[in-house]
Amino acid sequence: MKISARNQLKGKVVEVVKGATTAHVRIDIGGSIVTASITNQAVDELGLEVGKDAYAVVKASDVMVAVD
Amino acid sequence: MKISARNQLKGKVVEVVKGATTAHVRIDIGGSIVTASITNQAVDELGLEVGKDAYAVVKASDVMVAVD
Amino acid sequence: MKISARNQLKGKVVEVVKGATTAHVRIDIGGSIVTASITNQAVDELGLEVGKDAYAVVKASDVMVAVD
Amino acid sequence: MKISARNQLKGKVVEVVKGATTAHVRIDIGGSIVTASITNQAVDELGLEVGKDAYAVVKASDVMVAVD
Amino acid sequence: MKISARNQLKGKVVEVVKGATTAHVRIDIGGSIVTASITNQAVDELGLEVGKDAYAVVKASDVMVAVD
Amino acid sequence: MKISARNQLKGKVVEVVKGATTAHVRIDIGGSIVTASITNQAVDELGLEVGKDAYAVVKASDVMVAVD
Repeated sequence: MKISARNQLKGKVVEVVKGATTAHVRIDIGGSIVTASITNQAVDELGLEVGKDAYAVVKASDVMVAVD
Repeated sequence: MKISARNQLKGKVVEVVKGATTAHVRIDIGGSIVTASITNQAVDELGLEVGKDAYAVVKASDVMVAVD
Repeated sequence: MKISARNQLKGKVVEVVKGATTAHVRIDIGGSIVTASITNQAVDELGLEVGKDAYAVVKASDVMVAVD
Repeated sequence: MKISARNQLKGKVVEVVKGATTAHVRIDIGGSIVTASITNQAVDELGLEVGKDAYAVVKASDVMVAVD
Repeated sequence: MKISARNQLKGKVVEVVKGATTAHVRIDIGGSIVTASITNQAVDELGLEVGKDAYAVVKASDVMVAVD
Repeated sequence: MKISARNQLKGKVVEVVKGATTAHVRIDIGGSIVTASITNQAVDELGLEVGKDAYAVVKASDVMVAVD
């Protein structure tokens, strides 16, 4: 599947924390850590676990820009 | 200002393209390019231009995860 | 690629309207029309055009529920 | 109330699962299942339960497009 | 229609600016101005114009919190 | 830090409810209550508690408009 989301950043899963229905997954993208909040169900379906290769995917309209 | 968004990735602006009301800003985050779709007005207020240091900011609930 | 987004609805593109930087793409999902607002660039990369098979993909945290 | 969201898909609730603060509600839209992640509080206020008519509402800017 | 979005802030439209496909609508909520980026089509369907009563509607998962 | 998000509404925290991984924070913005769904971790990092000054921050593309 090829998706329209402009941001598909390749990295490696470094943490998976499951809550009651929502999990937090952290992916190391060349040294920067990206946190995703996804369903527990998605974690299971994708077989996400520490060390696995994964992409952080973000739609361009969900990215903000900040300056110091 | 300190914000709750889990993802605040530091980088440098590499492209700014303005449309009628919406602009696309690309930020280089340690080699990965992140594209943000923000208002032209925000581009002007933050003084965004090529070469400027900037953060790509994304709420954790807006990040998806994909695997090959 | 397999993605965490809970909603991946299969259908057929019925309209593509490009703006200055943002396009609106309509997909017929078994009779319901879903409208996506994505970048012109994504439209080109995915080769979206009327009649093409496509999925409308939505993260569960972006779906609201309403009742009459 | 009439809302600007382009996508208001009519269906029937087929599952409601409450977590600690966040619930997952599934709606059958003419055979496709749409999953919404909303607050437990919203579930209570709208009286959402299996069999009830409901709409899945999604802003166009939150819809991505994918192709095989 | 009753919607699950936790934030439905009543106010008055103070500005409508249309772009190629996307419009920016500003609503005065008891002195605070809220800006919405919606489709031109939604502006037309809702008959949005300066002076009209309107709600700014935001899903709780799209609200971030910041402190000075 | 200065951020591109068009909506930065100043108010005071009136409630903080933590779930398993996700918290709900309510902010009083001049009489209107805005609910934010953020990570427990963000609540801790920002030191959010009842009575504290805070901003509700929302990207313009995440605001919908409704009329009666």
